[in-house]
Amino acid sequence: MPRKRAVQAPRGAGDGERASALSERLFTTRRLSAELVSPLSDEDQVVQAMDDASPTKWHLAHTTWFFETFLLRDHVEDYSAFDESFAYCFNSYYEAEGERHPRPLRGLLTRPGADQVRAYRAHVDEALERLLGTGDVPDAIRDIIELGINHEQQHQELLLTDILALFANQPLRPAYSKAAIAQTAKSVAPSWIEFDGGIVELGYDGGGFCYDNEGPRHEVLLRPFRLADRCVTKGEWLDFMDDGGYSRAELWLADGWTTVQSQGWRAPLYWEKRDGGWRQMTLGGIRPVDPAAPVAHVSYFEADAFARWAGKRLPSEFEWEHASTGVAEEGETLASGALRPSPAGEGNGAPQQMFGDVWEWTQSHYSPYPGYRPPQGAVGEYNGKFMCGQFVLKGGSCVTPDGHVRRTYRNFFYPHQRWQFMGLRLAEDA
Amino acid sequence: MPRKRAVQAPRGAGDGERASALSERLFTTRRLSAELVSPLSDEDQVVQAMDDASPTKWHLAHTTWFFETFLLRDHVEDYSAFDESFAYCFNSYYEAEGERHPRPLRGLLTRPGADQVRAYRAHVDEALERLLGTGDVPDAIRDIIELGINHEQQHQELLLTDILALFANQPLRPAYSKAAIAQTAKSVAPSWIEFDGGIVELGYDGGGFCYDNEGPRHEVLLRPFRLADRCVTKGEWLDFMDDGGYSRAELWLADGWTTVQSQGWRAPLYWEKRDGGWRQMTLGGIRPVDPAAPVAHVSYFEADAFARWAGKRLPSEFEWEHASTGVAEEGETLASGALRPSPAGEGNGAPQQMFGDVWEWTQSHYSPYPGYRPPQGAVGEYNGKFMCGQFVLKGGSCVTPDGHVRRTYRNFFYPHQRWQFMGLRLAEDA
Amino acid sequence: MPRKRAVQAPRGAGDGERASALSERLFTTRRLSAELVSPLSDEDQVVQAMDDASPTKWHLAHTTWFFETFLLRDHVEDYSAFDESFAYCFNSYYEAEGERHPRPLRGLLTRPGADQVRAYRAHVDEALERLLGTGDVPDAIRDIIELGINHEQQHQELLLTDILALFANQPLRPAYSKAAIAQTAKSVAPSWIEFDGGIVELGYDGGGFCYDNEGPRHEVLLRPFRLADRCVTKGEWLDFMDDGGYSRAELWLADGWTTVQSQGWRAPLYWEKRDGGWRQMTLGGIRPVDPAAPVAHVSYFEADAFARWAGKRLPSEFEWEHASTGVAEEGETLASGALRPSPAGEGNGAPQQMFGDVWEWTQSHYSPYPGYRPPQGAVGEYNGKFMCGQFVLKGGSCVTPDGHVRRTYRNFFYPHQRWQFMGLRLAEDA
Amino acid sequence: MPRKRAVQAPRGAGDGERASALSERLFTTRRLSAELVSPLSDEDQVVQAMDDASPTKWHLAHTTWFFETFLLRDHVEDYSAFDESFAYCFNSYYEAEGERHPRPLRGLLTRPGADQVRAYRAHVDEALERLLGTGDVPDAIRDIIELGINHEQQHQELLLTDILALFANQPLRPAYSKAAIAQTAKSVAPSWIEFDGGIVELGYDGGGFCYDNEGPRHEVLLRPFRLADRCVTKGEWLDFMDDGGYSRAELWLADGWTTVQSQGWRAPLYWEKRDGGWRQMTLGGIRPVDPAAPVAHVSYFEADAFARWAGKRLPSEFEWEHASTGVAEEGETLASGALRPSPAGEGNGAPQQMFGDVWEWTQSHYSPYPGYRPPQGAVGEYNGKFMCGQFVLKGGSCVTPDGHVRRTYRNFFYPHQRWQFMGLRLAEDA
Repeated sequence: MPRKRAVQAPRGAGDGERASALSERLFTTRRLSAELVSPLSDEDQVVQAMDDASPTKWHLAHTTWFFETFLLRDHVEDYSAFDESFAYCFNSYYEAEGERHPRPLRGLLTRPGADQVRAYRAHVDEALERLLGTGDVPDAIRDIIELGINHEQQHQELLLTDILALFANQPLRPAYSKAAIAQTAKSVAPSWIEFDGGIVELGYDGGGFCYDNEGPRHEVLLRPFRLADRCVTKGEWLDFMDDGGYSRAELWLADGWTTVQSQGWRAPLYWEKRDGGWRQMTLGGIRPVDPAAPVAHVSYFEADAFARWAGKRLPSEFEWEHASTGVAEEGETLASGALRPSPAGEGNGAPQQMFGDVWEWTQSHYSPYPGYRPPQGAVGEYNGKFMCGQFVLKGGSCVTPDGHVRRTYRNFFYPHQRWQFMGLRLAEDA
Repeated sequence: MPRKRAVQAPRGAGDGERASALSERLFTTRRLSAELVSPLSDEDQVVQAMDDASPTKWHLAHTTWFFETFLLRDHVEDYSAFDESFAYCFNSYYEAEGERHPRPLRGLLTRPGADQVRAYRAHVDEALERLLGTGDVPDAIRDIIELGINHEQQHQELLLTDILALFANQPLRPAYSKAAIAQTAKSVAPSWIEFDGGIVELGYDGGGFCYDNEGPRHEVLLRPFRLADRCVTKGEWLDFMDDGGYSRAELWLADGWTTVQSQGWRAPLYWEKRDGGWRQMTLGGIRPVDPAAPVAHVSYFEADAFARWAGKRLPSEFEWEHASTGVAEEGETLASGALRPSPAGEGNGAPQQMFGDVWEWTQSHYSPYPGYRPPQGAVGEYNGKFMCGQFVLKGGSCVTPDGHVRRTYRNFFYPHQRWQFMGLRLAEDA
Repeated sequence: MPRKRAVQAPRGAGDGERASALSERLFTTRRLSAELVSPLSDEDQVVQAMDDASPTKWHLAHTTWFFETFLLRDHVEDYSAFDESFAYCFNSYYEAEGERHPRPLRGLLTRPGADQVRAYRAHVDEALERLLGTGDVPDAIRDIIELGINHEQQHQELLLTDILALFANQPLRPAYSKAAIAQTAKSVAPSWIEFDGGIVELGYDGGGFCYDNEGPRHEVLLRPFRLADRCVTKGEWLDFMDDGGYSRAELWLADGWTTVQSQGWRAPLYWEKRDGGWRQMTLGGIRPVDPAAPVAHVSYFEADAFARWAGKRLPSEFEWEHASTGVAEEGETLASGALRPSPAGEGNGAPQQMFGDVWEWTQSHYSPYPGYRPPQGAVGEYNGKFMCGQFVLKGGSCVTPDGHVRRTYRNFFYPHQRWQFMGLRLAEDA
Repeated sequence: MPRKRAVQAPRGAGDGERASALSERLFTTRRLSAELVSPLSDEDQVVQAMDDASPTKWHLAHTTWFFETFLLRDHVEDYSAFDESFAYCFNSYYEAEGERHPRPLRGLLTRPGADQVRAYRAHVDEALERLLGTGDVPDAIRDIIELGINHEQQHQELLLTDILALFANQPLRPAYSKAAIAQTAKSVAPSWIEFDGGIVELGYDGGGFCYDNEGPRHEVLLRPFRLADRCVTKGEWLDFMDDGGYSRAELWLADGWTTVQSQGWRAPLYWEKRDGGWRQMTLGGIRPVDPAAPVAHVSYFEADAFARWAGKRLPSEFEWEHASTGVAEEGETLASGALRPSPAGEGNGAPQQMFGDVWEWTQSHYSPYPGYRPPQGAVGEYNGKFMCGQFVLKGGSCVTPDGHVRRTYRNFFYPHQRWQFMGLRLAEDA
């Protein structure tokens, strides 16, 4: 579940970055939030599609509250809160920051209204500008701004996945963005890339920002393995479905099988059978399923069953991270405008689609790295408290803001969750 | 539960009414809906506060759908539906009218937006004007319009009670209407009015509009009884609370006691203890509890327990209706602007507060009158199907539109429900 | 729900009965409980088949606790309780008698064991014998014994219906009694018996024992009506099923329709489709459905839907009671040994099957009679507290102990309940 | 959850064991099951205390069904099943073996009765004797018998923990075994034992029987760590409670905190506050809490919170297994007769209490070892399907049959479960 949004103080991040550059990144991020919201009505922004999701307006206000609470309140003299009641409304889960509006009731918050939230953002932005305009920015402030940028980026992704969840519940199935067009690339068979075993060093290595859960960097013992050079496609998923994938108990984890039956799963989330064919609700509205594109919106349970069906397995988070060495940390992310995962190209011996497109489920339970300790204070409340029963995903998705993800990034969700852009890539022992 | 909104063809109603007068009543009612909504933002209108409630926007669209479906579609040549998908979105519970959006998901409908619903209303109003502008209105159409007016009035009341439920869930406890001011009248002791027994005729007697469940008129055998000349007040309710009313099992129906414990009830709905004193969320915001005003937002379980505590009982619906003979069908209803129940005056030997202020719980289960048959067709789907496990309330409330209620009117809710303006008046055997 | 087992002090009951006769009735009743249990293993007696049911052992102990608590403890000098902890274990719902073991956990009580419960019964019976052996029995004691007899008879019926619920959950579908054989009588068409309207006196009239809820006797205004001379049969129910009875929303109360869908009801309780035909779990094991016998194990929702489908209605409790005047208060009850409802014979102008066979649903909500007041004290805790949302059933069933039921007897259950032997008889306006 | 009871064919187990020795181990195990049941009535054996538990009778029958299904049916010519319906009744979760009685309804099975289950056991034992009496036992049969012995041992432990759960629900809190006496040893402070890091080989090494999930043996990279030489005691747990352990959110995993609040946890399972002091339900009845004994019946959530409070952490399963090298695989297990964890003695530089007393929570999610593949066929249905969201426990408990546990044994439960004898031992980085 994406409640993991508190972050560790960056270690050495941006030491050499000029204040003006930091400021530009900050306000670029802040502006992007506003742009993402532009296709939405005020009504769209107030509703909570399901317990896991949050209203758009809440995302906008909560990311702003973050700066107000952890930066302006403490570091800007004479800063006057926009509205004292907002702390109660827009705290997410920081127990140390006091009582807060219950998560499942976020969708009842019609007041403060969207216009007030816009004013709130302007108020805080103005204070941030004053703070950064002075030119000389101490490290402590710099660190929190870096945190706030990354925090807001995470909520930008959630904002889009939550809007998709909302729009999929509209009888009219509206499009968030008309511009996004279905791909019709040709499907390419996957190749297998082999990696040696041995002791490797993994985890955050000190260059730039990271979350606390990416460290400490530590040695990991790998065995030789092979990794597919691209993600599993929707065409392959249709084969799994046609082969009875959703009705064969032997393919599933016990908890997965229970979920399949109680939820009546027969296909990935957002797939609908219409007129005999499968169509899919996307941010571009209802579209035919594209066989060449990576499957998305599948749970860990489904990914694991698919891998078993295919005679393969999911990679561990360490295998994935190791395999990503040398792959540039970029791909079809938010700025590409696709708003959906895109088909892979012809293989060239290197892993494709590692960054962007879909978050890739790994077989690794989300556990602390050796020597991990959560940071002190409310800001460090904390990736650690979610290290139980979830699985690690790697690589970012088509709605991850550019520059947000990196090879050590550990996303995590429960094995039944599937409203994010989640897919998979196969692995096997060498 | 207020899903009872389909109604029987009026019997003889308005035979002598000119088409222009009917038209005026229709458009006055339609305009009132728009006026009631004016203090609300679009965001306020989209959210569903709880399963029993509906979003404002839904009320506005559903009442419009009613005219489109039961009148324009069948009786206006060349009528073109505003949007074919609206039938799915805004049908309430008419099984005969096909599939519909699930009730608990009404609050997810951000599309169609409030602006489209306003356009929908204008589109239908314009068609209604054309229909009525011809001067000559056949009885069949007249009947449906009468139905539609009453139907919309019911939703006007619900719209206000549902907004109260929503605003009570806002951390900021906003006021729907700032104008409404707390009363501070002096409390007056109740007097008891005695009525003879015998056979009386009750139920709809043929003058004007009624719902199907108000008939057939039939003979009822009454025993001598006494009725309080006013409703139970909040001051009296505080006495009940102070005397352990909510913690004494012997005062409660078994199901009521279970509900008190599972829900943690300690006071009427919308009451909050702040700084040692009781305050109450109202359409005018948070206000001190006024001891002289009728208690509202209490369930049947609570009303019944209070009566037992007081050594009295609730009246039957027949006693209430009989006692109302000779009392004018008017009182503190919506047009008074109070938006809350008002204190009674000095007694004068006649029942006060019979109409308006609060719906009064009776001890009568909601059952069919002898000889009752629901009308045919979808429009008659139908008060009858709710005749199970609910109780009858009489007299209307402070948010009932003027002219809507009458002495034969039978409102009904489940014994645990309390988000309407519901109160009680005591009775005893003579 | 059958928690109504507390009873009012009998009014004038048995004034002329000699102590020895009362004693004989008492111990005959006590022995019958033991006989009913004889086909059961200790294991059968400990398990609770569902929340509405209780374990056999619990019934045996609770009826014994009743005598100990309300009679021996107060009226027998030097009476020594069998085990002080039993008061906690075997109180049903008497709030005034202190804390008690939670109802849904009754099935966890393996200790005290069945042998201890048998010893408990012997201990209390021995004390009762001493008490009654003195010859001179004061009225107060006489009244409580009468209460206790009737109370135990109610639990004898429940014991059998709860065992049926348990055995229906056994994969092996065992028979409680092998002796009971399926009837194969020929079905006879129903006749309609007409009754005049007018004011009639109904309710308990002073001769013998009754429960508090059967009075006060009072005048009721009836309209002319007709009543079927027999109950609805399983053959007629199959016609209803074949005509889509369980899939036509328009036949059902709204709450009934919701229940049909959420529970997946397609037939009466205990019916199973095997090899293309309907079979039914009975106290005699799995048997073919007998078309001539009265349908049983149908809820109020189903009875009401059937009546609507048939173009008739259910009788009111007052119509039923009035129609029973002149019909002997006897029929196929427990001593007949049938353990299932039996087919009616040829009509003879008088109502058949009024007593025994199946409890007959009426259209009457279970409400207090005019002037009703529950008796004081724990013994009077009390039919009154269940007067909410339930419906009245009349006439007793094939597992009601002989002599237990009478024409004024008011049984009551919630409209969704159907594990008792519940059926229906049709009525219509004359 | 202990549904993991299917096992892999033993690899090389008992190659040198003579048939007579295997036979003796088999029947010793079978007899032990009967002995464990001797203090119980038939009633005790039929009831299911909670969804996680199973009735005693079910354990007895299921372990017998295992031999019938996987051995006798296939390997004994002319074997005649005791009762064909038992396959439906007593299959646990083997999807490949067909439909089965739903787990939560196991407690409804009063038929077949306990006497039939005893006859079933005798029937199967007799066939097993015939099979083994021939002297020459092929490897395939030998393997299944080994499996069956270990399978039955697991159910022996469950049988006892489930009886404790049942007896803790009896108002009378009966003792399973009166012989067990409370210890009153003196508490000894823990010592810390240091271990070097490096690459170690862990997992099943080929000597004797193991489950599939204990292999393949593989290299693991450890970092230097320290391990406490004994388990956490109840006295230390009381300190945690006194320091607000159950009310300080910052000590808990997010899911743990939710559980604490929703379940109202304030102490380990089976602890009760009576007369101001803590007492504990045990297999010996209600006893005072012994401060020197290891705490038991705590969930992973609680173990993790305690470790955080203590400034330590739980060991990984690999650290635990590595530390156990050189420690004899024996301790206070079932044959000791204690039926509860016993206090540690004075430290001597080696880990105490590693085997027996309590299962020790590790920080390791239950995941497959590298190269793990579940065995084929129904018998291999399979530890693998539970590898999701659970945590590994090591070392066995006071109710684990002697010889059942070993250092590579991996038990696993969900983090909220605590009805097993579960405790913890602290670790820290060196």
